[in-house]
Amino acid sequence: MGWEFWKRELDEEELVEDGFEDYSSRRASANGVGPRNLVDPLEEPVPGLGTYEDFNTIDWVREKSKDRDRHREITNKSRESTVALLHRISDAFSGWLLMLLVGLMAGALAGGIDIAAHWMTDLKGGVCLVGFWFNHEHCCWTYNETFQERDRCPQWKSWSELITGTSEGAFAYIMDYLMYLFWALLFSFLAVTLVRAFAPYACGSGIPEIKTILSGFIIRGYLGKWTLIIKTITLVLAVSSGLSLGKEGPLVHVACCCANILCHLFTKYRKNEAKRREVLSAAAAVGVSVAFGAPIGGVLFSLEEVSYYFPLKTLWRSFFAALVAAFTLRSINPFGNSRLVLFYVEFHAPWHLVELAPFILLGIFGGLWGALFIRANIAWCRIRKTTRLGHYPIIEVLLVAALTALVSYPNSYTRMSGSELISELFNDCSLLDSSQLCGYEQPANMSETGVGNSLADRPAGPELYTALWQLALALIFKMMITVITFGMKVPSGLFIPSMAVGAIAGRLLGVGMEQLAYYNHDSIIFRGWCSPGADCITPGLYAMVGAAACLGGVTRMTVSLVVIMFELTGGLEYIVPLMAATMTSKWVADAFGREGIYEAHIRLNGYPFLEPKEEFDHNSLAVDVMRPRRGDPALAVLTQEGMTVGEVESLIESTHFSGFPVVLSQESQRLVGFVLRRDLLISIDNARKRQDGVVSASQVVFTEHLPSLPPDAPPPLNLRGIMDLSPFTVTDHTPIDITVDIFRKLGLRQCLVTHNGKLLGIITKKDVLKHMAQIANRDPDSILFN
Amino acid sequence: MGWEFWKRELDEEELVEDGFEDYSSRRASANGVGPRNLVDPLEEPVPGLGTYEDFNTIDWVREKSKDRDRHREITNKSRESTVALLHRISDAFSGWLLMLLVGLMAGALAGGIDIAAHWMTDLKGGVCLVGFWFNHEHCCWTYNETFQERDRCPQWKSWSELITGTSEGAFAYIMDYLMYLFWALLFSFLAVTLVRAFAPYACGSGIPEIKTILSGFIIRGYLGKWTLIIKTITLVLAVSSGLSLGKEGPLVHVACCCANILCHLFTKYRKNEAKRREVLSAAAAVGVSVAFGAPIGGVLFSLEEVSYYFPLKTLWRSFFAALVAAFTLRSINPFGNSRLVLFYVEFHAPWHLVELAPFILLGIFGGLWGALFIRANIAWCRIRKTTRLGHYPIIEVLLVAALTALVSYPNSYTRMSGSELISELFNDCSLLDSSQLCGYEQPANMSETGVGNSLADRPAGPELYTALWQLALALIFKMMITVITFGMKVPSGLFIPSMAVGAIAGRLLGVGMEQLAYYNHDSIIFRGWCSPGADCITPGLYAMVGAAACLGGVTRMTVSLVVIMFELTGGLEYIVPLMAATMTSKWVADAFGREGIYEAHIRLNGYPFLEPKEEFDHNSLAVDVMRPRRGDPALAVLTQEGMTVGEVESLIESTHFSGFPVVLSQESQRLVGFVLRRDLLISIDNARKRQDGVVSASQVVFTEHLPSLPPDAPPPLNLRGIMDLSPFTVTDHTPIDITVDIFRKLGLRQCLVTHNGKLLGIITKKDVLKHMAQIANRDPDSILFN
Repeated sequence: MGWEFWKRELDEEELVEDGFEDYSSRRASANGVGPRNLVDPLEEPVPGLGTYEDFNTIDWVREKSKDRDRHREITNKSRESTVALLHRISDAFSGWLLMLLVGLMAGALAGGIDIAAHWMTDLKGGVCLVGFWFNHEHCCWTYNETFQERDRCPQWKSWSELITGTSEGAFAYIMDYLMYLFWALLFSFLAVTLVRAFAPYACGSGIPEIKTILSGFIIRGYLGKWTLIIKTITLVLAVSSGLSLGKEGPLVHVACCCANILCHLFTKYRKNEAKRREVLSAAAAVGVSVAFGAPIGGVLFSLEEVSYYFPLKTLWRSFFAALVAAFTLRSINPFGNSRLVLFYVEFHAPWHLVELAPFILLGIFGGLWGALFIRANIAWCRIRKTTRLGHYPIIEVLLVAALTALVSYPNSYTRMSGSELISELFNDCSLLDSSQLCGYEQPANMSETGVGNSLADRPAGPELYTALWQLALALIFKMMITVITFGMKVPSGLFIPSMAVGAIAGRLLGVGMEQLAYYNHDSIIFRGWCSPGADCITPGLYAMVGAAACLGGVTRMTVSLVVIMFELTGGLEYIVPLMAATMTSKWVADAFGREGIYEAHIRLNGYPFLEPKEEFDHNSLAVDVMRPRRGDPALAVLTQEGMTVGEVESLIESTHFSGFPVVLSQESQRLVGFVLRRDLLISIDNARKRQDGVVSASQVVFTEHLPSLPPDAPPPLNLRGIMDLSPFTVTDHTPIDITVDIFRKLGLRQCLVTHNGKLLGIITKKDVLKHMAQIANRDPDSILFN
Repeated sequence: MGWEFWKRELDEEELVEDGFEDYSSRRASANGVGPRNLVDPLEEPVPGLGTYEDFNTIDWVREKSKDRDRHREITNKSRESTVALLHRISDAFSGWLLMLLVGLMAGALAGGIDIAAHWMTDLKGGVCLVGFWFNHEHCCWTYNETFQERDRCPQWKSWSELITGTSEGAFAYIMDYLMYLFWALLFSFLAVTLVRAFAPYACGSGIPEIKTILSGFIIRGYLGKWTLIIKTITLVLAVSSGLSLGKEGPLVHVACCCANILCHLFTKYRKNEAKRREVLSAAAAVGVSVAFGAPIGGVLFSLEEVSYYFPLKTLWRSFFAALVAAFTLRSINPFGNSRLVLFYVEFHAPWHLVELAPFILLGIFGGLWGALFIRANIAWCRIRKTTRLGHYPIIEVLLVAALTALVSYPNSYTRMSGSELISELFNDCSLLDSSQLCGYEQPANMSETGVGNSLADRPAGPELYTALWQLALALIFKMMITVITFGMKVPSGLFIPSMAVGAIAGRLLGVGMEQLAYYNHDSIIFRGWCSPGADCITPGLYAMVGAAACLGGVTRMTVSLVVIMFELTGGLEYIVPLMAATMTSKWVADAFGREGIYEAHIRLNGYPFLEPKEEFDHNSLAVDVMRPRRGDPALAVLTQEGMTVGEVESLIESTHFSGFPVVLSQESQRLVGFVLRRDLLISIDNARKRQDGVVSASQVVFTEHLPSLPPDAPPPLNLRGIMDLSPFTVTDHTPIDITVDIFRKLGLRQCLVTHNGKLLGIITKKDVLKHMAQIANRDPDSILFN
């Protein structure tokens, strides 16, 4: 450190002046291509500037700033002419219009999927003679007979009946079995082949990826039109194939695809990654809204489970879009009952405080099952990822489909589709109900126990005992098959299988409680509220609570789940049981691991997702997380002036960093700004092509005023325009938990670390995630992308 | 700038080393009283350190950091002993326990308030002979006659009947009138005197102040026990006095008081301002939950309207507390109908798409009324603030109460309480309904139009026309009186009066539509869906939509309002009309001014509230907002070493700043940390008292290692412990919108501005608010507090 150094410092001091220099010139430049304003909001001078590469993380602050500049521009222009004013108004309402379109499109698609899946599911059992396009129910509607069993009519022929003429006997049974197997294999084969051939992103539920995208990650094509088309088709196929999967999760993906595609109609949303993510948050709400017919629950699902940045404006718009979608779906009326909701239930009896004990038991079961399922599923997915199994997805799907079909056909509760099963389990038995689950013995002493109360608790009959056995087998089968099904290369949702598991468990417990109450109505527990002839236990309610508990254990949703269930029943009456079960389930499951299934899949795939919920509780400082680490080569920085184009290019080539801090000088390391690698590359490239005299020896400057150069030097290249003049900084002593908070809340991509005004290092989102993984004793290299 | 300066710089460079110094020693200190860790989490060495003064803004980051330190401490200790482990577990569940207590207490209080207000409202009309503590309804319950008019029974005597023996004739009427006036004046006098004498904070709705408190402001005593007691009592008095005010808003204040008081039971919440605000957010949800019996709506109200920082954990807890409160209230059963909700409505007819036109009209009316009301009310409150009117609050309240009583007694729709009026307006007329509003002509050709449909549209009879006139007068009166009532020195909510205005307007329009449809059922509009004898228009639904629209116009709530209404009816059916009306209402009202009534009152009172909703759209840089401005004296800073205690004290005395940046040296202005004025004062005071040899000539140092001092110098005072080593900084070029975003999202109190690593100035929340006020052409000095 000799005189040269002091000289340099002196120059800098003079350059910086007293801090009260005139900012007006800078501000003027800020309106053009100045700081934070990398691209002119309405035209793009250098194509690609300010955009992102695939598998990279966006900078929320930059995106929102860009949008505000655009908005300001439009507002300023609107004072000039009527056309510009109209443009401003249309711009203001474009968000609502977009929401309307998303709601309409997603509602229509969901209706189509429902109808198609219903028809194809029935196709596995037989065909309608009046027209093959009718499903079982519609087919029997046209045959207008008086009250009969819903699913028996001459028009509908099972395959054995159609071929051999009879549906009786072992041969017919085997023939139907084989046809069922055939269709299941065909559908699942088609599904997996289509996914593999046209849109690999169409597989799975899509929610982990959507969570990651909403947190600011770029996965090009994940929400594209091919994904939409293929996912819609293969979803129908996968659901119809009888695999243990649901269509509710993928519907969220479908709705997000719709939103993403419709975003292209509006410049505001097409060009801004942050604004587009607001629309996608709303689309997630739309997805759940159409899946369950629960608009409020959908909005809360988006808020609680999926979204990262959820301002109030998005809340309003989500709600609007969710309503539009729900009403579109209702107009299509795919369930044929003009109900909005997937499972409409109406219970007649209130619940008693004592019943909280079994409800909490169901919560514990749900939590245990959730934790177990996540572990088993992740272990299986890891095997798929790391062994040869992953190379044969088609064979895997076919094998699982065959296994599912073979095992599930003989048991009527596994043969029926997941949502039918749940509907039946939620159902409250009336006296006239012909379902096996309502196979109670008719009370002999009807007059004694009160004829009026047709829903009184009754002893179980042999039919019900058979049903219970079948349900128990179905429970075990569903629990096992779901583990290996979720994560295969077909669209697969987890809501319905999880709910089915819980509903079976709940119904079993409910019937058990009912019989206990019936035979022990004098015991201390039941005395007083469960006299003979009273309808005191509703097994359907237990099924519902169980379904909520299991879904809660797997996904760790609470409020949104309760609200969805509340919208199904439409009564505040059952919120307390649901709340008790979901909360217990969440606590129990959290005790085994804080991650829900979606977070676990995000981690499995190594997405850079910074969980907004979890409290980060560790005692380290920013300096421990930042790069360069002790012993690493010094931080790669650019200087404000003095570097040539060639030097900059070789620096870019020799490193893989996504951005470079700009400092006053190598010696002082005082931070001036931050430049992104991509912007730097594009700008230099562009300058070399278009700007005269820019050669490798040209000086790259980031200053406001060009430095005086020797007369024979090539013209300098001023890149101040692409420099972010307001990079985020923290001091080296900032605790890491505060740093993580800043990353989460502001949606940063990177943050610079300073000590007493000098640049020390840089922290990227990936560094934070790696540090968190390290603390949790996980492999820090499991975080894959940038 | 001579050699001295360079010498200094050199020393600093050496001091700072290469940035890779050993941080372990610092981190060790971080666990004690080190950076961000001003107070040891479990014991407080210097009392007052790290607390706030009244009317100051908290630093969210510091508070949350404190809580994390505390949590970490407990977690670490829990590994040592079983007692500590139990402590950890109890600590983890204390939040839930607190929520349970808040729910129970607020639910019980709300029940008590309901019962008391009901009784005292009836007391204005008469007294029960069986027992004066019975209200009118209960009094007539005890008199067990068969079906009769609900409010006629011999046990209940009106005052004239009690005194003169008859309730007939002009004399009796005047006597009742005078008694009504007497009670109204007595109640309002008691209310205003109690508020003035014991708890001035108990007046108003409390929501503006709670919003401000939740955003991080300190108002000591605003949520204290005196406020709670006095507010509860005076709320009952104010509501019973017949003034045009509701108890729903103040219930939010009452619930928050409960929460704040219960927080004192748990160290975690007592000592941490940020954690306490999480509880208060949940309490706001509880308040609405008990006010309307709408737990989900309450949670969304807290999220949409009141809260500032609403993490998911708070969402779950709010929901839990809101449920507990709602069920506590239901167990108390103040409405005597075991309904959870304040206005239970059940409509039978669906709505038709054509009806959206009148619904949107109601939305426009609501928006206009909202905008008008806010302007008029704020203008009136400003008059009260600035003129002599404000000096006589008791006389003002008595005058308004007298005026209200005098005008409202003759009109039965203004005489009844606001919530009774709304109930009646929401009600759907059945054939047997004896209400004046159902005074339709009995269809002569009953057989023709179909007897089965008892709810068919019928022509209005003379009784209904009278009712309509009375309603129109009531509308005008309510609209005017509410403007001068809201803001008086009594507890006053705005929900019920706003809803009443909307419900009257809606009912008028609804009856109008009904008659239009009845007489023009062949016109193009009504043909096809409104044939004679059909029940096509439900005036009660119009009243409900109108109520939502007016409330939305005044408060600018949307989703939470729709959800509250949805919980009242329990059907998704009417969400679209409600949504259309509230959205229209919000858009129309926003066109006249973006502020809701609560924000307007916050501004009127000059609270430092940084609106989290509004998009801040202005093109200035951090350097324009920061202090010191150009021409101001230089920023008051402390140096890391070299200042004496006396110098520091004189700096504190000569300025009024709440904190001082610490820099390396006056010349280099490189930022080291930030010290709060209060902490500095307390620490110096404490050191002078307790530490030997600390005199005015002692050096104050903020360094890690004590500098070498001449042997005769007094011992230095090291204050590194109270210095925030990680102050937030932005560069001078940061656009102000990003700065505002940082302030909002991180909940900052101040932020330092740097240029190329040198400290330039400071921005406080107040500076930001002043700047925003300036841009909006308002007086920047209207922001009063710190």
